[in-house]
Amino acid sequence: MTISTLSTRHHQTAELNMDQIFAQAANNENISFGMGLPDDAIFPSAALAEAFNQAIQQEGATIFQYHATQGPLSLRQKIATLTAEYFDFKPSPEHIILTQGGQQAIDIVGRAFLDKHDHIIVEAPTYMGALDAFDSYEPTYHEVALESDGLDMVQLEATLQQFPETKFVYTIPDFQNPTGVTMSLAKRQQLLALAEKYDFYVIEDSPYRYLRYSGTPLPSLAALDTHGRVILVSSFSKILSPALRTGWLVANPELTALFLTIKSTLDVQPSHLSLMAIDYFLSQHRMADHIATIIENYREKCWLMLDRLAADMPAEVTFTQPEGGFFIWVTLPDTMDATALLAGPVLTEGQVVYVPSEMQYASRQVKNHFRLNFTGVTTEQIHTGVARLGEILQRQCAAIQ
Amino acid sequence: MTISTLSTRHHQTAELNMDQIFAQAANNENISFGMGLPDDAIFPSAALAEAFNQAIQQEGATIFQYHATQGPLSLRQKIATLTAEYFDFKPSPEHIILTQGGQQAIDIVGRAFLDKHDHIIVEAPTYMGALDAFDSYEPTYHEVALESDGLDMVQLEATLQQFPETKFVYTIPDFQNPTGVTMSLAKRQQLLALAEKYDFYVIEDSPYRYLRYSGTPLPSLAALDTHGRVILVSSFSKILSPALRTGWLVANPELTALFLTIKSTLDVQPSHLSLMAIDYFLSQHRMADHIATIIENYREKCWLMLDRLAADMPAEVTFTQPEGGFFIWVTLPDTMDATALLAGPVLTEGQVVYVPSEMQYASRQVKNHFRLNFTGVTTEQIHTGVARLGEILQRQCAAIQ
Repeated sequence: MTISTLSTRHHQTAELNMDQIFAQAANNENISFGMGLPDDAIFPSAALAEAFNQAIQQEGATIFQYHATQGPLSLRQKIATLTAEYFDFKPSPEHIILTQGGQQAIDIVGRAFLDKHDHIIVEAPTYMGALDAFDSYEPTYHEVALESDGLDMVQLEATLQQFPETKFVYTIPDFQNPTGVTMSLAKRQQLLALAEKYDFYVIEDSPYRYLRYSGTPLPSLAALDTHGRVILVSSFSKILSPALRTGWLVANPELTALFLTIKSTLDVQPSHLSLMAIDYFLSQHRMADHIATIIENYREKCWLMLDRLAADMPAEVTFTQPEGGFFIWVTLPDTMDATALLAGPVLTEGQVVYVPSEMQYASRQVKNHFRLNFTGVTTEQIHTGVARLGEILQRQCAAIQ
Repeated sequence: MTISTLSTRHHQTAELNMDQIFAQAANNENISFGMGLPDDAIFPSAALAEAFNQAIQQEGATIFQYHATQGPLSLRQKIATLTAEYFDFKPSPEHIILTQGGQQAIDIVGRAFLDKHDHIIVEAPTYMGALDAFDSYEPTYHEVALESDGLDMVQLEATLQQFPETKFVYTIPDFQNPTGVTMSLAKRQQLLALAEKYDFYVIEDSPYRYLRYSGTPLPSLAALDTHGRVILVSSFSKILSPALRTGWLVANPELTALFLTIKSTLDVQPSHLSLMAIDYFLSQHRMADHIATIIENYREKCWLMLDRLAADMPAEVTFTQPEGGFFIWVTLPDTMDATALLAGPVLTEGQVVYVPSEMQYASRQVKNHFRLNFTGVTTEQIHTGVARLGEILQRQCAAIQ
């Protein structure tokens, strides 16, 4: 038996071997701006430990039994309240489905909608994990460029005119991964108008929305949606703890039953114990207070990294100015290759890790950008790491002139 | 937008609406032999609570952070030891992948191997959750009848001759779900010889193997396998707690990397907190001791149910004689329809729930059997429930004569 008996979906990505780069990100000798890690230091560890304790003591042995696929109602009610507070609309707990992180929510959407060669639209660049999930269903991707205020609406409508059978647009409207860009209100409204005109769903992936460091919040797509076209994905990974592996889907009534069936097929049901611990935590702690603490910490790091990039980068290198979230997007001159640079001087001399753009485009072709994370590193690492990157890029830019 | 924009895989199962039946199983006024629940009363709740406590205290804040997709090495080492003890072979921890229950392990295998219309062989009947998972990849099923000592080997080879492109055989060799049947040693050897001859993988799904109430253990397929053709799936759900959602895959070296990539695509990584709690539990408690306690409890219930079935069922009704596991399979006269009976007198008069055979065959066509679970009910419920079922079936059988 040879590897050729595997399904076709696993041939296409065989060339990209990023595993070694990720291993470098986990190597403590390097400064990693690579992964999208929250800061360990602000996990409410004692409170979560106490919440696990209480949940087990008070729920008794049944907490260890099988439970409902959708997740406990009491937690879905609290997520509805959290959504009302941060997304300006309050979903019914009946339409909230707990998932194994936001990643599983994205996979569920892919599995629900996509047959091989179906058309979908993604931002260019976009979240690499979403591309991985959608790849499983072998869709035909159409990329629409991301501008500093969100999707290029002219290109989006042209794409829809050419491919009116498009099933959905996948977007991260707030503090986008990987660029940090936020979609303007006008574009949010245009996107929803186009969804109605061209009859497609909008997947609003929004794990970062809670974390705004400056500027004014804009209404979520889900709040602006009046036709049940938005499927909202969010998660506790960035605001509580990723190890809890707890995300959720908010769907319209027709889709809820199907998404639940798919969730059941994937892994029967969520980790009830973790969900109940979160439920107990939320009963006793105001999420908004904890989020305010996180914002204080991450705002400082975000602004520091922007400051150091401005100071250390050569003039040819540009970068985004996020108002929140986890990431800054750096653009090199067209001819430069961020993957090759990483494998070369950035890792070997600078001992710095970033995520090169290549794997963050559906085309896997664009090489002259990279993503920097500022939340999972210390301010000292930001100083040192950006200085090292700056030195290398100064040299590289000088060399191509 | 209409439901027609969903992927094709979700059209085929729309007719089967078993949700109401499952809701009945969760209704406390009914006696449920339906789900495959372990008995709450033997969860080691206090020890697990203590394990969560210790894990969080001793690991510190990093326990709440992102971790490796494969799961912690220390737990994989313990699973290797458990496998050595119960499956007669010791896998390398490098080839063990932690999954969100056994269900996700099955889904990963399906995703790795199956393109639409690919050929696979399943037992008839088989685990309904595996059918749900494989359905997502729209394979062409070939069913091979299950005899009292496992797969019908003549039919299996005839099927392989006709469909030599078959990618894998999915089997539950020990105390099969739903029949309780165990595959004989001779058939295990024949199956592996056929795997070599016709070049296919064998998926050995074995969550129940630990729970033998009588008879002599037979070597696992994984232990007999000398060509890396067996992919082993198991889980803590039946021997520790299903709410921990912790299963695993044991794969050959070539498949491990691919399975890890798929796992990462599905939900990034397992619930590290639950895995670490299990790891601490296993550091301080002998799993074999806990399993011995479970066996005592379930053996009594198994034997009681067999005894009551013998006493209460009409002569036309037959049932299997499992030596372990969770289930007994009941066969009605050919003309009877277990689904209709359930929706009719069994639920409304008897207030008893079972799982009708229809959804446990890939064909979804066979209606005259049902599955009974004996582990999740009390001995009193077994007495009462089987008596009620017997009364209804006595009447039904008398009516068709």
